[in-house]
Amino acid sequence: MALENRKTENFSEWYLEVVKKAELMDYSPVQGCMIIRPRAYFVWEKIQGFLNQKFAEDGVQNAYFPLFIPQSFLEKEAEHFRGFSPEVAWVTMGGNEALGEKLALRPTSETVMYDAYSRWVSSHRDLPLKINQWCNIIRWDTKALKPFLRTREFLWQEGHTVHATREEADVEVRTVLNSYKAVCEELLAMPVVQGLKSEAEKFPGAEYTTAVETLMPDGKALQAGTSHQLGQNFAKIFGVEFKTADGGKKLAWQTSWGASTRLIGGMVMLHSDDKGLVLPPKVAPLQVVFVPIYKTEEDRGLTLKACSRVAKKLSCSWLVDDSDRTPGWKFNEWELKGVPVRVEIGLKDLAKQSVTIARRDTGEKEEVTEEKAHQFIAKLLEKIQENLFNKAKKFLDENTREVQKFAEFKRVIEEEKGFIKAGWCGNAQCEEAVKEETGATIRVIPFEEDETPRKCVYCDRPAKNAPLFARSY
Amino acid sequence: MALENRKTENFSEWYLEVVKKAELMDYSPVQGCMIIRPRAYFVWEKIQGFLNQKFAEDGVQNAYFPLFIPQSFLEKEAEHFRGFSPEVAWVTMGGNEALGEKLALRPTSETVMYDAYSRWVSSHRDLPLKINQWCNIIRWDTKALKPFLRTREFLWQEGHTVHATREEADVEVRTVLNSYKAVCEELLAMPVVQGLKSEAEKFPGAEYTTAVETLMPDGKALQAGTSHQLGQNFAKIFGVEFKTADGGKKLAWQTSWGASTRLIGGMVMLHSDDKGLVLPPKVAPLQVVFVPIYKTEEDRGLTLKACSRVAKKLSCSWLVDDSDRTPGWKFNEWELKGVPVRVEIGLKDLAKQSVTIARRDTGEKEEVTEEKAHQFIAKLLEKIQENLFNKAKKFLDENTREVQKFAEFKRVIEEEKGFIKAGWCGNAQCEEAVKEETGATIRVIPFEEDETPRKCVYCDRPAKNAPLFARSY
Repeated sequence: MALENRKTENFSEWYLEVVKKAELMDYSPVQGCMIIRPRAYFVWEKIQGFLNQKFAEDGVQNAYFPLFIPQSFLEKEAEHFRGFSPEVAWVTMGGNEALGEKLALRPTSETVMYDAYSRWVSSHRDLPLKINQWCNIIRWDTKALKPFLRTREFLWQEGHTVHATREEADVEVRTVLNSYKAVCEELLAMPVVQGLKSEAEKFPGAEYTTAVETLMPDGKALQAGTSHQLGQNFAKIFGVEFKTADGGKKLAWQTSWGASTRLIGGMVMLHSDDKGLVLPPKVAPLQVVFVPIYKTEEDRGLTLKACSRVAKKLSCSWLVDDSDRTPGWKFNEWELKGVPVRVEIGLKDLAKQSVTIARRDTGEKEEVTEEKAHQFIAKLLEKIQENLFNKAKKFLDENTREVQKFAEFKRVIEEEKGFIKAGWCGNAQCEEAVKEETGATIRVIPFEEDETPRKCVYCDRPAKNAPLFARSY
Repeated sequence: MALENRKTENFSEWYLEVVKKAELMDYSPVQGCMIIRPRAYFVWEKIQGFLNQKFAEDGVQNAYFPLFIPQSFLEKEAEHFRGFSPEVAWVTMGGNEALGEKLALRPTSETVMYDAYSRWVSSHRDLPLKINQWCNIIRWDTKALKPFLRTREFLWQEGHTVHATREEADVEVRTVLNSYKAVCEELLAMPVVQGLKSEAEKFPGAEYTTAVETLMPDGKALQAGTSHQLGQNFAKIFGVEFKTADGGKKLAWQTSWGASTRLIGGMVMLHSDDKGLVLPPKVAPLQVVFVPIYKTEEDRGLTLKACSRVAKKLSCSWLVDDSDRTPGWKFNEWELKGVPVRVEIGLKDLAKQSVTIARRDTGEKEEVTEEKAHQFIAKLLEKIQENLFNKAKKFLDENTREVQKFAEFKRVIEEEKGFIKAGWCGNAQCEEAVKEETGATIRVIPFEEDETPRKCVYCDRPAKNAPLFARSY
């Protein structure tokens, strides 16, 4: 049951082993697809709950749009179609008959939603319109597939809003990006950097794209959520326009934004260790496990009773593992599955009216009186949540390195990995050259102002900004 | 904005008008698919919440399985394949390349789930295994399509459980069927009959199928949820077996069960009227609307203030409609959209320190003192929920007619419609003949014992039971 791979030695195999053995996923007979097992789906439901609340506060309503998109729809916005068509899966048969027009399985839903929006929006009274859907998405990706991080079917939410002005749409883009930062940091203990994508990396069809980006332990960046200002681009094509209060007619401004089940993969990579899964307590399906330690049947009864006494005072989720396995087996099992807190109760503990409490994140054990155990555990769960975030934040900060010269850039990306902060002239050729020579792309141009004068790391001309570069998932 | 069709005159057109104008749905460019708009999706989220709680109490966990099913999987269970293959949509291209094996879009997920179950179940310790998923389902139906009731893509939940014994599986089938009854009756105010399906009407591959069946105002039956005992049929094919405590090996027993967004369509048909949508308060996105009635700007201020005073004491969802429309326009609008309670506040009301409260289900108005308004409204919402159920139950009971002779059967199905209770010898030929000659099928053989000796309505031989026959959606 123990892991065969080590996080620091063979990271990729270690990750595959963790997600499989911790029962987060299983493979499907269809290559590139996967089963999201209950332990992982529980995390997804927590993400849904968190974001649904944020969305509701912002006036967003949930809905559901069809999976099928006619080819003609997808082709309407040329840049959008170029961006997605290489990855589209097509339905060509229904029942035993060939379809008249082949149907795309949605790789994203702008086109089908905005066609509807053009009917639903007619007056300034209908704005803003803010709709979100939770659904499956199909992208027939040929890049390296990896559970949660890159699969041909995945789950996500996509929000699509319509506004009367550019300014309102700009605000919406940032409001949602803040929700993404919150879900990553507050729920998943995964620190992110917020910023702008470069032209080359933006969403096909958008005016600009913002993103939250995080760093994985192997030094690769992970895009955790994106929020796009679409301008009036799609509105023009689909005819999303509205009558103004004074009787005029205007094209609407639109945004779209999404976050997916890849968040689960990022969280697992970030926190887990050589013993298996480590879960932030806020998303752990089981937060506390009790392991009674006994030899005789009589002691079994006594220790189980003590477990129940403590457990019943808890307001979190818990389980008393009274199965016929050895304590050692149980320790390994629940560590592998990522239960944040383990409570051991043996005869010595009973004699002292105490319990032994082990935390999953650090492995530390502490003896606590039975009476105070429930309060201790409640606080410990908070501490673990906080510790996971702080550890990850420290890692992110320590692995964000500023460089001036391209030679140094190449050395760091090879040897140290992580984010590289470097000046950029804003020219797409330099960005492309850096990508070709190092495999690193501009992940984000951070929102945080940084007035230091710099030179472009590639061409040495004056820099316009200082993006974070990295290799990425 | 008013409806052009009448419920009693042209039911089918009336229904289409209600779901469209009340903004529950919109059509998609792909025939047979539809958009579930926020007002309807809200109802779906209430259904999800209700069932998720019931499922959790039963130890069911949520998960997600792939949309794609290889053709070879679907073919493994012959009866299952025969049942579904005429309706399967096939993906044959990914990106710009033809796929090696064409992939079915799930018409149901037994095959892909039980392949996984065969890996997950190995010991009696792994049982029972109870997993549910909320997902989209594709059936390329060629029968008459109707929003919510029959679409080529719909949303549902499908639960799939594994048990050590037949008895446990039998219990599971009934436990879930009770949850379906509860969600229909307690949440959607839609009374149902529980019972067994005939062999001809059971799920392809099941040992037996149970269902909750309800009656629509046009006298057609609607299947609202099904729960199947699969026996060991799929377990045999997919190899779902477990080691017993004494070291032996046994095939598992399985169940599957599902309920879909068609529940929303049934609820709308059942309760709505010629003014538009009628919603049970428990699933209404907006439960109370306030309409201030004024002529001058000063009176506007006064009436709006009074609206706020009452609204703020409510613990349900509410909206003060302060838009620049006339009160009459607002009355129509919110009646069309199915808001259960309307509160009118005009100058006369202000003078008397009272408010006028109108209920959507009966149209009755009542004057209530401002002070007691919030309590009155809270009770009224409960009363409306109850009234809708009682009215529907009365309709169901009055439209369930017992007949002895086939001539009478034919007359009733033509002239009165509804459920016909009649004796049946249990023979599939009689069932088929009734269907051919009248269009009515056996909807359920009710669980409620009925010991009256009867003769088969078709062949006059002694009856084995007394099913409910009806034409159906």
